[in-house]
Amino acid sequence: MHVVVNAAASADGKLSSRRREQIAISGEADFERVDRLRANSDAVVVGVGTVLADDPHLTVKDESLCNERLERGEPKQPARVVVDSKGRTPTDAAVLDDAAATYVCLSEAAPVDTRLELADRAELVTAGDERVDLLRAFAALESAGLKQIMVEGGGELIFSLFEAGLVDELRTFVGPKVIGGRDAPTLADGEGFVEAFPQLRLERLERLDEGALLCWTVEH
Amino acid sequence: MHVVVNAAASADGKLSSRRREQIAISGEADFERVDRLRANSDAVVVGVGTVLADDPHLTVKDESLCNERLERGEPKQPARVVVDSKGRTPTDAAVLDDAAATYVCLSEAAPVDTRLELADRAELVTAGDERVDLLRAFAALESAGLKQIMVEGGGELIFSLFEAGLVDELRTFVGPKVIGGRDAPTLADGEGFVEAFPQLRLERLERLDEGALLCWTVEH
Repeated sequence: MHVVVNAAASADGKLSSRRREQIAISGEADFERVDRLRANSDAVVVGVGTVLADDPHLTVKDESLCNERLERGEPKQPARVVVDSKGRTPTDAAVLDDAAATYVCLSEAAPVDTRLELADRAELVTAGDERVDLLRAFAALESAGLKQIMVEGGGELIFSLFEAGLVDELRTFVGPKVIGGRDAPTLADGEGFVEAFPQLRLERLERLDEGALLCWTVEH
Repeated sequence: MHVVVNAAASADGKLSSRRREQIAISGEADFERVDRLRANSDAVVVGVGTVLADDPHLTVKDESLCNERLERGEPKQPARVVVDSKGRTPTDAAVLDDAAATYVCLSEAAPVDTRLELADRAELVTAGDERVDLLRAFAALESAGLKQIMVEGGGELIFSLFEAGLVDELRTFVGPKVIGGRDAPTLADGEGFVEAFPQLRLERLERLDEGALLCWTVEH
């Protein structure tokens, strides 16, 4: 399994404002880059906070990229995965439509009636007592054939994945805005590290749209 | 007056961990860049939080840069400025030693006995009732001959300066670490913007040490 975290952040490292509203940080070239990255992935993963805040569809938009997938013998769309400890994904969420396969990773704390409802619309992966055990959940995804994984946020999930040692690459588009806010979501939230900080290696640095693309690999 | 904000942040936009401990984010080349930037400034500004957390000296370390200043008819060291609404700068803080001139910007809320103690060791600038009125304080600094200003943090001061429209340039070194933490200090904290986000223009992008240097100008 290979896990790539991809996110767009402001020049001060924020994914959105303290109101959690989506803010246009990148541009057309970055949109195409992200669409291609999705198309080259077996699954696109987000945390439930991102589903609740943005209701993303997480599908590949460029039809020719979908056709390339079909030619490679892959499903037209990569699978979508929601990491959702308590089962808070709304049943009318865009990620639960029939445009692609969807997995919802739950913990044992997700209520049974929620599970029944979600089970009609997604494959359920249950791992962990109060929170999703990411190592076990990702192992289950790998067993289901999902090897090339793209993670699109949010900051809580990204931190947890770094904490679990699951991240292989981090790609950030840094955009030409200052968002600010001590309560605004950042690229990696959670408890935060106080020692043994994950170390990165800068593999690629380039201008893109009105900002910069930084591609890091994680030193394991 | 020309205000350059300079900071080193982790790949996820943090200035330090949630414990506020200093973390080595950059390397030797960035250290030299920052020293040169200090040497080309009339004043180096920090918020009192940075003084309390790191007790920095804020002086130019390279003696040859100091000599260049003297040859230009400037003081050997740039002035140091602490923005300190309530007068919390300890009287034994490194910024109050006699290596360089020091200004402490206070609000009317700073206790009188604190002011008396600080007045022995620094020039005092008082502006604002509960918090330092940055526009008035920076105007006073300009009147004192401080035109080229470098701001070294922390995130609360940097946000307030963007809010006041005082920032002309933002230079960030992005280092090869993930710090994480929803409570870790970021490049721009404070309340945060929810609209009218300051817009930047990427002027320079280069590899430096094991990370990237991003130099932005602020669109006014």
